[in-house]
Amino acid sequence: MALIVHKYGGTSMGSTERIRSVAKRVAKWARAGHQMVVVPSAMSGETNRLLGMAKELSPAATTPELQRELDMIASTGEQVSVGLLAIALQAEGMQAVSYAGWQVPIRTDSAHTKARIQHIDDARVRADLAAGKVVVITGFQGVDEHGHITTLGRGGSDTSAVAVAAAMKAHECLIYTDVDGVYTTDPRIVADARRLTTISFEEMLEMASLGSKVLQIRSVEFAGKYRVPLRVLSSFTPWDIDIDAEAKSGTLITFEEDEKMEQAVVSGIAFNRDEAKISLMGVTDKPGIAHLILGPVAEANIDVDVIIQNVSHDGRTDFSFTVHRNDFQRTMELLRVKVLPVTGATDLIGDAKICKVSIVGIGMRSHVGVASRMFSVLSDEGINIQMITTSEIKTSVVIDEKYMELAVRALHKAFDLDQPPG
Amino acid sequence: MALIVHKYGGTSMGSTERIRSVAKRVAKWARAGHQMVVVPSAMSGETNRLLGMAKELSPAATTPELQRELDMIASTGEQVSVGLLAIALQAEGMQAVSYAGWQVPIRTDSAHTKARIQHIDDARVRADLAAGKVVVITGFQGVDEHGHITTLGRGGSDTSAVAVAAAMKAHECLIYTDVDGVYTTDPRIVADARRLTTISFEEMLEMASLGSKVLQIRSVEFAGKYRVPLRVLSSFTPWDIDIDAEAKSGTLITFEEDEKMEQAVVSGIAFNRDEAKISLMGVTDKPGIAHLILGPVAEANIDVDVIIQNVSHDGRTDFSFTVHRNDFQRTMELLRVKVLPVTGATDLIGDAKICKVSIVGIGMRSHVGVASRMFSVLSDEGINIQMITTSEIKTSVVIDEKYMELAVRALHKAFDLDQPPG
Repeated sequence: MALIVHKYGGTSMGSTERIRSVAKRVAKWARAGHQMVVVPSAMSGETNRLLGMAKELSPAATTPELQRELDMIASTGEQVSVGLLAIALQAEGMQAVSYAGWQVPIRTDSAHTKARIQHIDDARVRADLAAGKVVVITGFQGVDEHGHITTLGRGGSDTSAVAVAAAMKAHECLIYTDVDGVYTTDPRIVADARRLTTISFEEMLEMASLGSKVLQIRSVEFAGKYRVPLRVLSSFTPWDIDIDAEAKSGTLITFEEDEKMEQAVVSGIAFNRDEAKISLMGVTDKPGIAHLILGPVAEANIDVDVIIQNVSHDGRTDFSFTVHRNDFQRTMELLRVKVLPVTGATDLIGDAKICKVSIVGIGMRSHVGVASRMFSVLSDEGINIQMITTSEIKTSVVIDEKYMELAVRALHKAFDLDQPPG
Repeated sequence: MALIVHKYGGTSMGSTERIRSVAKRVAKWARAGHQMVVVPSAMSGETNRLLGMAKELSPAATTPELQRELDMIASTGEQVSVGLLAIALQAEGMQAVSYAGWQVPIRTDSAHTKARIQHIDDARVRADLAAGKVVVITGFQGVDEHGHITTLGRGGSDTSAVAVAAAMKAHECLIYTDVDGVYTTDPRIVADARRLTTISFEEMLEMASLGSKVLQIRSVEFAGKYRVPLRVLSSFTPWDIDIDAEAKSGTLITFEEDEKMEQAVVSGIAFNRDEAKISLMGVTDKPGIAHLILGPVAEANIDVDVIIQNVSHDGRTDFSFTVHRNDFQRTMELLRVKVLPVTGATDLIGDAKICKVSIVGIGMRSHVGVASRMFSVLSDEGINIQMITTSEIKTSVVIDEKYMELAVRALHKAFDLDQPPG
């Protein structure tokens, strides 16, 4: 008997019929003797419907007061889901109770629409589990110290599930989703992409951060920080498949580096076309210039991804970085008004038609020349590299969006990812 | 400058376009110098949509655990409304903030799906008003002492608005609805029904309790208990009509009996076809019999309306009462299982095809013979009376449902309600 957390995405919760299937699956696990905590997302389409109405009423504004109200509205999608799932579980003969984020409580900071979890009180949930109940907790949301409802941003339910699993010291957190695991790359782009049975936490972190949409990056960070074993698996298997087979399916994100991993230099190819590139040309190169440029961006709660500052010529340098495309216009305007005048930059250039392609692998640590191999593969395809960043276990390049599929396919083949590990 | 509470029904909140109109109307009042608290209902159809999904998952059950989950689900409709209205107010240039019931908090008992308000903490709202904000509060819901979300039952947003007005000692509580006031009877049944400019609190209480759907009865009780001046008015006037004209429109529910009221013996004809009649025949007539019968009904949280026990013959009597039609089957079953065996009753008879018709008027206090006049009017129409109850200011009869319109029209005419008060 173990404490298990299940997380179900919006598609799995998309109709009462599907919710009934989720309830039957959870009941199967509970009847096998596990203590069950379930974190469902809002029914698919619901968050968009709710925020769509808000947008009709206030097309442009982005004040903190508005964002607080967006959280009031968007958080209801998950609240409906937990209530419906609890009812479906009761109809299956289980004892079940649902909680909104504020009821647990899941305490967050006050950054509305992209809050961060600070603390989860496990007392209430633990008492319910001890009383034999299945506990259903809203994903995506929490409550700040002033009692305002917050949300964690898109995909936040993954983070909620992992955070709950960490707080409850769960045996495993199972993320049921519409794919059956983590692949070497997106099978829609490369037909012979392979499912990985295990992936290291660090690789998964890079895959997630680089646009592999399977898991939200913060959920992986949380899992790493608290060493929560995390499994990504399909919610489209029949609910009554053998529980032992189900428990071993999908992709397990592990914290131990086993031999098999060592053998594969590159585990996967990630890509991302959600970003936009911004360059400030001819910035006066003096200490503090990066902060001068990115400080106002950070203050506006805009996440920056790749940052490049090259060596300077004649005391001037070009400074480039990428942001999410949704933040592109806002960032350009911010720079034009607040940054351009004080940096001495000669020009501000934005480009939303870029993509980022990355090779990720723990094996890169002990193998030299992997990055240069990547550059040569791209060069052979005639693809120009606009930006490069590297870390211990990944190398990313920013290229023209139109070459994305070509780059991913070429790299997948060049690093033998279509072959099972030897 | 006064503190005013506005309440808007689901139809008024039915689309983003209508929410925008509500925001413009509220902004008009705020700009006129009033401190504004607004209590909107869920968007029309939303509560039914939400509870419909719950019903698909659990068609029959009525456990407390299920009802708790229904409240989790249903309460989200109002939460979406307050968020959207706050955003619309912000778009109008107002400062606005929304609160769910638990955030105020609006404290209730734990009777899920029909909870009662116990206390409202006004500190948070008062601080916001002092800071110049319009405060938007969810109707229909609260939170119990254990932090569970509760709802007040259908129409509960009226009660929320009045309770908030009482807690805030508001100057007036304006209930915007899809009718333009309280009528002598339902204009859909009697074409020359007249709108009352004022009605006493006690008459309104009877009208509401007798099925006049303008206001929920508990809201009128609250208004009476805390002497909250209550105005029912139309939400379909243009938002930009003159505020002084708007402030005098509709029907004011007053606490002073003025001369005009004294002149009208009967103020209105109410009716109700939501009830069902249940009779236990040949009950052994001994002390405590009423409690023996109705105790289990009350414990099952079923409201009983009319209760009749007639004189006994040979130590046996017939005991009849009415309940809401939704509770009819459940009550019949309860009586069959728990009550019939212990009362010695010879038979249990139920009839859902009844209606209740009532004449209501403060003037009845000082005029004898009003009730007998009513019986003679019904007799002239050949309508058989099945049950009679009276209070100081109303007389109600239970009759066959099919005679309802006939009875209402005849009484409306007989008591000169089609004539303006002299």
